[in-house]
Formats: sequence, structure tokens, C-alpha cells
Amino acid sequence: MFSLERGNGLTLADQVCDGVRRQIETNQISGGSRLPSVRKLAGKLGVSVFTVSTAYERLVSQGVLLSRAGSGYFVAHRLHNGNAADPKTEEMLIGKPREAISFVLNAVDARRYDVLAGSGFLPGDWLENAIPPSVVGRLVRSEVTCSAPAPAQGLPTLREQLAVKLNNEGINASAAQIVITFGATQAMSLICSLLVKPDDTIFVEDPGYMLQHSLVAYTGAKLVSIPRTPSGPDLDALEELARQHRPRLFFTQTLLQNPTGTNTTPASTYKLLSLAEKYDFHIVEDDVFGDMCVNKRLRLASLDDFQRVFYINSFTKVLSPALRVGYLVAHSKFIAPLVERKVLSVLSGSSLQESLVAHALQSGRYQAHLNYLQTKLVKARMSAEQELTSTGIRFDHQALEGMFMWGKVPDEVDIDKLIDDAFDQRIFLSKGSLFSPTGAFSRHLRFNVAYSSNPQLIAFLRKAIGGAGASMN
Amino acid sequence: MFSLERGNGLTLADQVCDGVRRQIETNQISGGSRLPSVRKLAGKLGVSVFTVSTAYERLVSQGVLLSRAGSGYFVAHRLHNGNAADPKTEEMLIGKPREAISFVLNAVDARRYDVLAGSGFLPGDWLENAIPPSVVGRLVRSEVTCSAPAPAQGLPTLREQLAVKLNNEGINASAAQIVITFGATQAMSLICSLLVKPDDTIFVEDPGYMLQHSLVAYTGAKLVSIPRTPSGPDLDALEELARQHRPRLFFTQTLLQNPTGTNTTPASTYKLLSLAEKYDFHIVEDDVFGDMCVNKRLRLASLDDFQRVFYINSFTKVLSPALRVGYLVAHSKFIAPLVERKVLSVLSGSSLQESLVAHALQSGRYQAHLNYLQTKLVKARMSAEQELTSTGIRFDHQALEGMFMWGKVPDEVDIDKLIDDAFDQRIFLSKGSLFSPTGAFSRHLRFNVAYSSNPQLIAFLRKAIGGAGASMN
Repeated sequence: MFSLERGNGLTLADQVCDGVRRQIETNQISGGSRLPSVRKLAGKLGVSVFTVSTAYERLVSQGVLLSRAGSGYFVAHRLHNGNAADPKTEEMLIGKPREAISFVLNAVDARRYDVLAGSGFLPGDWLENAIPPSVVGRLVRSEVTCSAPAPAQGLPTLREQLAVKLNNEGINASAAQIVITFGATQAMSLICSLLVKPDDTIFVEDPGYMLQHSLVAYTGAKLVSIPRTPSGPDLDALEELARQHRPRLFFTQTLLQNPTGTNTTPASTYKLLSLAEKYDFHIVEDDVFGDMCVNKRLRLASLDDFQRVFYINSFTKVLSPALRVGYLVAHSKFIAPLVERKVLSVLSGSSLQESLVAHALQSGRYQAHLNYLQTKLVKARMSAEQELTSTGIRFDHQALEGMFMWGKVPDEVDIDKLIDDAFDQRIFLSKGSLFSPTGAFSRHLRFNVAYSSNPQLIAFLRKAIGGAGASMN
Repeated sequence: MFSLERGNGLTLADQVCDGVRRQIETNQISGGSRLPSVRKLAGKLGVSVFTVSTAYERLVSQGVLLSRAGSGYFVAHRLHNGNAADPKTEEMLIGKPREAISFVLNAVDARRYDVLAGSGFLPGDWLENAIPPSVVGRLVRSEVTCSAPAPAQGLPTLREQLAVKLNNEGINASAAQIVITFGATQAMSLICSLLVKPDDTIFVEDPGYMLQHSLVAYTGAKLVSIPRTPSGPDLDALEELARQHRPRLFFTQTLLQNPTGTNTTPASTYKLLSLAEKYDFHIVEDDVFGDMCVNKRLRLASLDDFQRVFYINSFTKVLSPALRVGYLVAHSKFIAPLVERKVLSVLSGSSLQESLVAHALQSGRYQAHLNYLQTKLVKARMSAEQELTSTGIRFDHQALEGMFMWGKVPDEVDIDKLIDDAFDQRIFLSKGSLFSPTGAFSRHLRFNVAYSSNPQLIAFLRKAIGGAGASMN
């Protein structure tokens, strides 16, 4: 068909994408005809099924291919009438964060998998009682929620509920300091657009949330990795790097960090703030997993009182990924400029969604739901940890809460083959190196505790790891 | 109290804002105490009530003041503990489009007014039956809508429904060419971030949608005004300016243009596309009012087949301002880069909202609702036009459809005083110059037909205009 070159600057998926497109453009494959299956083409080219599947899906999103459930991929007929994908597309794609973005794009498509062991979301049935349909129907009947636009800063009732929630968690913030966003991602994006200039240096955690890395890379700023230890960011490394780079911002997850599941200790929290003061940088504290903590934990925002910290949170993880409701909290001087940037990017939020979340908070439903989730998570974690350990996966530290486990496969295992074989069996695994801006952690996997005692997953891992590492035990 | 300077580069609202803040910081007004009423301070300073109200509301959003319904504005107690608004705030605010953004921020707050004659939204009760609560409740029961995240490009079912809708309107687009957005604003923002660089020149309509102007100004690109005539953009001016400036993009509303309510004629549509080809620029066709057209109308996207046109639309105006669901349609080569930028700004859309809109389209409810709206709009327009004309307002041309009327007040009337006096009587009027990047149209007002035969409005205008222009008739 066509051949691939390693090390020519293009990813293998890019090359497969280009190769298939060239064949279509030169009529070697004609409009309407079916393409080789993902597995067959992967075998022929000597690449992973994940690579081919990524390439095919990109061509589907470009309108070059059509995907038909159960029967495979076909060449779209439109291609030949001039509105085909164009080589220039590649130039418009964002450079560095490509792999992370394509991971996000693919990971969301749960239909491809039976076992979402690598997912960043909780199972739908864990969340379905959080906001019952009857409540939604009732709220929609009230005029406020469904026919009036939301103020750009967010519905006052929701902001007031959030101020109460924050104060209960020991964070001193008023409703006027809160901006509602479409998820934590928009909060990060607004803060970046306010503070980050292309010649700035931004610190991120390694490993850390991949999209945070992409977002920073997209601003054009320089990205510097701060190692994450079981007690929080490595503060000696951070101080040394701060001295060298004078960063503008540090993105961190104090509690239940993604992917490691670790909490920053109170002592490290205090020391981190002192360093922020000493080296004059801001901190974005991303707390999207914090509500999964069973015990009360200290957050940076509690100590700092919004002098240097921007606090962000979201209901996507704990309430519903179908609602895109998040928020940021900042020093009052930043609120008007952030709201302006929100107006220019989305005008305003959705009063329907904001009302639903305000209701969940006000009625006590949210707290009840959290209690239920926390119990389920603890139980699922115990079982997943036991099962995964039995397959040969090792854990660097014992996290006790939250939804993630950060495991390591034995050295004998070919991890790329493991992930590919899993994909073939409709099992989704998250590769550790995706969470690292330096490409480290290539032997790690991030497991979602809710899916990780699944018998199909455990049987698969036992066979794959047991086979490779038989000599080890 | 303090005095204001005209022509020192700060708007009067900025100066009032600064003045009040300074008084609080220097303890001339103490924490917890009540501020002079808007009207009283306006009188003292010799500025409009709108100016003072804008300044007070900005201080509320900065946490400096508290607003208490019915009793006025108070100094927040928090101010003195170090977390006060800071003069640096002003530096972070976006320069040029300030006035437009603050208009948008204030206009959304419907609670301030009894008569929303200047509103850009339809009344809540015109929309409340579009998606009945029972339907929402039923949709929320199905797992798809409430506990699964939406793919970043948008729910496939919604994109397929939109492809059908577009094809019915004579626009040839596939689901793969559609990206769901949080309203038309996000669509514009994504297109700007993809195509516009700071040294580009962007053409916008004059008068035109104010936030479009702000959005373009925010990219750092140069903004050039193209006069809007009753038959569409002034194409002679456009060609002359295109020759000089070689624009990158032209933002236009082909149908029921905001604020003039005019449609671009088919002949102008064709000629505009030829100019885009000749001078090699793209066109963003913003069609958010197009569904209000009673008759079938030609859109640029129908003729162009996405060679040069980006088509954007939204359900905010016609279905519900509480839902932020819009979409863009583009050449397939732009889709993947646009989806990447969407991921980096908001991760993904809301599957709850997208399901609701998909259902409205699929069930035929949306079309039925449009028919109902169109009838109501035609009726409201006839009545509003008759009443407004009787007060002395003049119309340059007779628009027959849509929600806006673009009226002119007689030369004798002090329009700023008119808008202020209206504000005092809880009547919201939209000043024409806000719709012009050049500040032209200072004698125009944009009326929303749904509110503009309101007896309180008509009585007010008759008195204000009749008094000033008595000699005229």
C-alpha cells in the first residue's frame, strides 16, 4: 500500500493518515469503497491498531472517510468534488499537544470499549441519581432557568451557593470573586489568556493532567516540568527551577492529583506558597478531584486567601460529565478582566445548567451524592488494588482515596503491545507517558478504580503480564 | 465628592469607578455604609445615570460594593483586609471593546428594567413552549444525555440533524463538517483563533453586531468598517477597501442583519463571493437570525459550498437563551484544527444541552416553534412600527421580518438624555453608536419588536420626542 518512515518528524498516525488520503486522491481507492480493517492495515504496515484507528478517525472527522457501525470505514463520495481534506490541514493543527489532544478526542468515545479502565470519568450509573429527571423537569418549569440568559459572570444563586461551599471547606471567598465557566478547562483557558504571554515560563507537574500541558503549550509559553512526589510537588526541584526560570504560573492539583492520586501535605502546601511569594509567581490550584476526599484536607486557597492562588473546580467529574459547569475563584481585581474574556469567548454560560447545579447544592443533594460516591470509590479501590496487584501491576505508593491508581508494569512487558492488545479486546488503557510533558513514565498506566476490578481486564492483564513476567515472580 | 475630566482618555464610567474606589480606600466612605443613589451621584457629577450605574455595577463585580435589592449600594466590608480591587485591574481590562462588553454585561440583567425595548433576546414567554419540561425530564432519564460526556466535535445525533436542516435550507454540508459550540460567540472565537493573526485586517459591517467588533479587536487585528446598505454590504466600498487592505476575513450577517434587519440580496450575495475570490479572503456568515425569515432566503454558504465561507448559527435567539448551543460549518480541512482549539478552550460541549436541541429538531418541535415565532414576530412588528412611528421615530427602510427595527430619533432630541431618562423609568434602549466600530449612527436606536408597542415605552417616547421635536411636525 504505502510505507512509513520512523523519525521523519511526523507521527506514525500522521503518516498513515497522509498515505490513505494520497491513495484516495490518486484514485487507488475509489469513492464508496471499503478500506482494509484497522487490524489488517496495522498488520500490513507493522504499526499498532491504535495508530491506524487514530488515523482513520481523523480522516472521518475531516470528511474523507465514513465510519459505519459494524461494517468498517468507507471512502466518502464527497471527496472528489473539490471539498476534500487538504494537506494544509496539518499546518493548522496545534503542534506540541497533538498526542494529548488526540487521546482526549478518542478517550471520550466510550462506544469503542467494553472496559474503560483508562477513563478519566466515573461510570454513568454512579452519577445517574445525582440530579433526578423529576428535579430537572421541575426546574425547567420555572421561568428563570429556561428562557432567560445567564449573566456572564454566572447565575448569582449558583455563585452564592459556591461561596457557602467554599467557606465550609475553609476557603474564604465571596460570590463576587467567583466566575462560572464551561468546566475547569475554560477556567484554565481564561486564566492563561489573562496572565500568560508567549515569552513566559509556566511550571506544570510531571506527571500531571495532560490537557493542562497542552493548554500551556498552546499559549506559546515555555513549559517546565516539576516532578510530583507522594507528598506533593518536589519543592527542592521547584525552588531550583524557579531561581533559573522565574515562572509566571504554576499549575498544580493539591488533592488527589491526576494521575498519581497523591495529596500535597499541609507542610508542602505552606512551603509552596512561601516559594510563590519568594519567586513572585501565581499558582493555579485545580481542585476537580478534591470533593472525592473522604477526609477534610487543606487546600492552597485556604492559606493564601487569593493573593497568589487562582482556584478552579468543576462538577464534570463528580456530578455529571454531561453538564459542563465549572468555576474559578480569584482575587477580586482579576474578576472583571476574566469576565470580559469569558464574554469574548462564549458570551455567557447556560442558565439551565447553572440552575441545575445550584439546585443540587442548595437542596443538599450534592453532599448526599458525594457521600455515596466516596463510599463507592473506597470500596472499588480496595477491590481494584487487590486484583491489579495480583496481575503483576505495582504501585509506587498507597493512595487511599479518589478515582485513580498509578500503576507500573514489570520491565519485561512491552507496554505499547499491551495497550494495543487491550484495545483489540475493547479494553481502554491510559499510557503513563501521556501524562508527562517530558515523555517520562513510559512503564506506568493510570487506572480508574471504578473499572479496574473488571474480570475481563484482570484476565487480560494476568495473561499479558504473567506471560511476559513469569520469571519475575 | 470628586470631579471628572472629559477627554483624559478614560471613560466617564472609569473615572466614577476610580473616584468611588479612592474614597473607600482613603476611608472617606467607610465599610458597610451606603453610597449615594445612582440618580443623586449622577446629578452631583453631571453625568448620566447609566454612567454611574455602570461604574457601581463594575465595583460590585470587583467585590468593592454590594448591591442590595431595593435599598441600594453598600461598601463591602472585605475591602480593607487587603483583598481589595486594585488599580492594576484596569490594565488587564481589554482596551477597545470596553463599551460594547459593558453593554452586553449590563443588558443581560433584565431585572433592572420593566421594558426591554433594546434587548437582543425574545421574551421568555415566547420561548417557553419550545422544549416543554416534560420532554426535558424524559430526555434526562435516558442515559445518553445526562451521564456521558459529549464528543468534542459535538453529539453525532445533533450534527446529523443539523446536516438535514442545512440541506433543507439549500446548504450542502455533512455532519463531519459541523462543530457544536457554546453559542455563535464561541464559533466566532474559534474561527478567529484559527485564522486571524495580529497583523491581519478584518472587515466588519457598520452598523453590525457589537460583540463581533470586540472579538476581532481582541485578536489584535486591524478592524475596517464596511457600510451596510438595505441590500447588504456596500460592495463598491468593500472592493475599494479590499484592494487597499487585503483583508483576511469579512464578518457578515446575510439575513436579518443585526441591528438593521436587512437581508443581503441574491445578486449582492453572488457579487460578494466573487470579491472574496478576487481578493482572496474568507467570509464568516453569521446566521443567528436567519431562522426568523418567513420566506426562503439565499445564504452565502449555499452558493459557496464552504470554499471561502464559514457558516455559524445558534439556538440562543430562537430556542432558548438559557441553552448555549450553537454550531459552525466549514470546509472539512478546517474541522480537526477547530476541534483542537475547542478542546483547549472548553474540552467538550454539554451532552444534556446538545440532546435537548437534537430532540427539538428531530421531533419537529423546532419547526413548529419557528412557525409560531414567525407569526408572532410579524404581528408584533406591524404594531411596533405603527406605534413607534407615531412617537416621531423614523425608519430608513421597511424591514418586514425578524426581531429588530433600526429607528432614528429627530435631530432636536438629545439622545443621551433620552436613554438616561428611559433608564430612570426602567426602560432599556439600545444606542445606535454601540453597533458601530466608527461610533457612527449616534441618532439611531435598535428596537426589539417584541417589546416595542409597550404602552409605557410609547408614552415615554411620545412625551420625550414630541416635546423636543414639536416644531418638526
